[in-house]
Amino acid sequence: MISKKMEHMVANSSAIRAMFEEGNRLAKLYGKENVYDFSLGNPNVPAPEAVKQAILDILSEEDPVVLHGYTNSNAGYEDVRQAVADSLNERFHTAFSAKNITMTVGAAGGLNVILKSLLNPGDEVIVFAPYFGEYRSYTNNYDGVLVEISPNTVDFQPKLDEFEAKITPKTKAVIVNTPNNPTGVVYSEDTIRRMAAILEAKQKEYGTDIYLISDEPYRELAYDGVEVPYLTKYYANTIVGYSYSKSLSLPGERIGYLVIPDEAADSEALISAANVATRILGFVNAPTLQQKVVKYCLNEKTDISFYDRNREALYNGLKELGFECIKPEGAFYLFVKSPVADEKAFCAAAKKYNILIVPGSSFGCPGYVRLAYCVSYETIIHSLPKFAELAGEYDRR
Amino acid sequence: MISKKMEHMVANSSAIRAMFEEGNRLAKLYGKENVYDFSLGNPNVPAPEAVKQAILDILSEEDPVVLHGYTNSNAGYEDVRQAVADSLNERFHTAFSAKNITMTVGAAGGLNVILKSLLNPGDEVIVFAPYFGEYRSYTNNYDGVLVEISPNTVDFQPKLDEFEAKITPKTKAVIVNTPNNPTGVVYSEDTIRRMAAILEAKQKEYGTDIYLISDEPYRELAYDGVEVPYLTKYYANTIVGYSYSKSLSLPGERIGYLVIPDEAADSEALISAANVATRILGFVNAPTLQQKVVKYCLNEKTDISFYDRNREALYNGLKELGFECIKPEGAFYLFVKSPVADEKAFCAAAKKYNILIVPGSSFGCPGYVRLAYCVSYETIIHSLPKFAELAGEYDRR
Repeated sequence: MISKKMEHMVANSSAIRAMFEEGNRLAKLYGKENVYDFSLGNPNVPAPEAVKQAILDILSEEDPVVLHGYTNSNAGYEDVRQAVADSLNERFHTAFSAKNITMTVGAAGGLNVILKSLLNPGDEVIVFAPYFGEYRSYTNNYDGVLVEISPNTVDFQPKLDEFEAKITPKTKAVIVNTPNNPTGVVYSEDTIRRMAAILEAKQKEYGTDIYLISDEPYRELAYDGVEVPYLTKYYANTIVGYSYSKSLSLPGERIGYLVIPDEAADSEALISAANVATRILGFVNAPTLQQKVVKYCLNEKTDISFYDRNREALYNGLKELGFECIKPEGAFYLFVKSPVADEKAFCAAAKKYNILIVPGSSFGCPGYVRLAYCVSYETIIHSLPKFAELAGEYDRR
Repeated sequence: MISKKMEHMVANSSAIRAMFEEGNRLAKLYGKENVYDFSLGNPNVPAPEAVKQAILDILSEEDPVVLHGYTNSNAGYEDVRQAVADSLNERFHTAFSAKNITMTVGAAGGLNVILKSLLNPGDEVIVFAPYFGEYRSYTNNYDGVLVEISPNTVDFQPKLDEFEAKITPKTKAVIVNTPNNPTGVVYSEDTIRRMAAILEAKQKEYGTDIYLISDEPYRELAYDGVEVPYLTKYYANTIVGYSYSKSLSLPGERIGYLVIPDEAADSEALISAANVATRILGFVNAPTLQQKVVKYCLNEKTDISFYDRNREALYNGLKELGFECIKPEGAFYLFVKSPVADEKAFCAAAKKYNILIVPGSSFGCPGYVRLAYCVSYETIIHSLPKFAELAGEYDRR
């Protein structure tokens, strides 16, 4: 009796659930410390101490009726939105004000809000494989059609020729995610410039507006001083979806924002639509206490040296064992080539060593697997001998 | 360039926005204390002190990585869900367990989750006028068709004859909201029994499942010891959508839950679908800190004596002035008959006295207006002479 649209999604979801339960089962059987669970992107670095202090300060300073009340606008507290805008302007030399910021229930909430605002049934949304699998569901929620650009497995920068060829008059949005889940790759400034030029030309050719949606939960998780270009500066019709889930280690609190710049086509209507979508999708407003926390913690950042150490240890360890993998510049994922074409078989083989990893097919890129290294350093170090045994299975062939 | 579905919603929303801005304009012009804003259902009683203490305790006791992390299930923390189930079982002699509870981003989030889980395009959702206007948007989000039962303006219990006649093989859900927004009426046990009997008979006649969705943000706001029947006990296919927005004065924090009982048809599939819908609509999970707050505050309740005093003062005051109105048994709304058929003209007339009220057409019941009395007692007392002047305009005719 559940809706037809949901039926196959429930089936898919059971697979993820099964994997999670398998992890629990293994942990009970062998002890948690002997299970190497690289399957989930749930930060394991605690929120900065400043978050706790902010909550204490807010509770003692703010009127509870206002603090826990509905915000006047569905976009959130005016002061919080202005503070977010100011902070972005300072960091990226942009010129946003409060009205350009809509506080959201994380980036997932923000993406739903903007796709609800934009999509008519049949509108096309382009994504670059490998991509976060949820984009398919978000697009499907509003009867959009997901169009995949095949993966460039050389360096995992997007294939721009194929991109250009697949833009049609029905293309309404393009989603990019950099630093990328699942590859950890940061799209280069050159990539962004060329992508923007293609979009400009296609908009002109078709007389349409194509929105570039930048999904940025990993913006602050960039290593070795790599620059992550701020996309509104390269292309006018850019919408940014940000989340504090990883930058402040608050994924469960559901707090992020959308940036809808004045330069974007129909900016005012789009801002109004985002307000309405926030309301009618049932978000109503981003959780209010966490909105205030964000304002108090704009200059705080989770300790990424922890992830960086994990990155080096896992990347170097796997390379030494002969695994093929590009070194990630951001996020907390490693995207490793499966030693056999059927990466699901490889995931199954890994499980024999209590190693849990996710098949690349979930990201539109079969033949690869994703490892989330937001785990303890010990997990990584202790997993390496197991990976060695796993690798041994394939050397022998 | 925004989606067609959103276009007229944005227009509607501008009207609400305009009203809000009008309130601000009047407040600036005449002083906040001289504006009688009865337009918004935003609680003005602070959260119980226990909420603050709960947050302090939680912050000092819980591991921040778990506290602020994604929950293992999209339905929320297992311990919180079990605690909610236990509390319901104690109060209502039900037999729920954690698996029957899905923590949600308020009741609005919960209603979206369950409608997304249930509706195929064209499925009908029945509501009883007057009803909370957002039901129309929530139903429209999933291409459902809203079917209105006309208002019974004698006592605002639902018209069950019309209800019976309007159930079709396409009826997938019925939404009830008791205590009711905008009337404050509590549906009687007799109403519920008769409604359940009609639904049972129609299910048999058509061989369908019809879900009764009980939207319960006002359950704890009931006066004079009135009993609010717990609907799962009267009809097996009942889903409850609850919110702590009013019971703990936490509307901005977005915390509530769905109950999907084992007795409901396809209960297991529906629970799974609610999980998936929570994820793909971008909620991911209800805000985690607030989930824990709920667990700590299950026996807390906002001080309703405050609303009760307002209710008596406003109801008696308006009755004395000759306004027609049914005495509300719950919630914090008064639904008053407009002295002229065109209630929008009445709202406009009220504005001349700095009184802001909402036309009944917004609730599918023209000829009436809604007053939200979640305001200060002083606002009510000081508004009465203004209502007297307003009433005078109509006496003179």
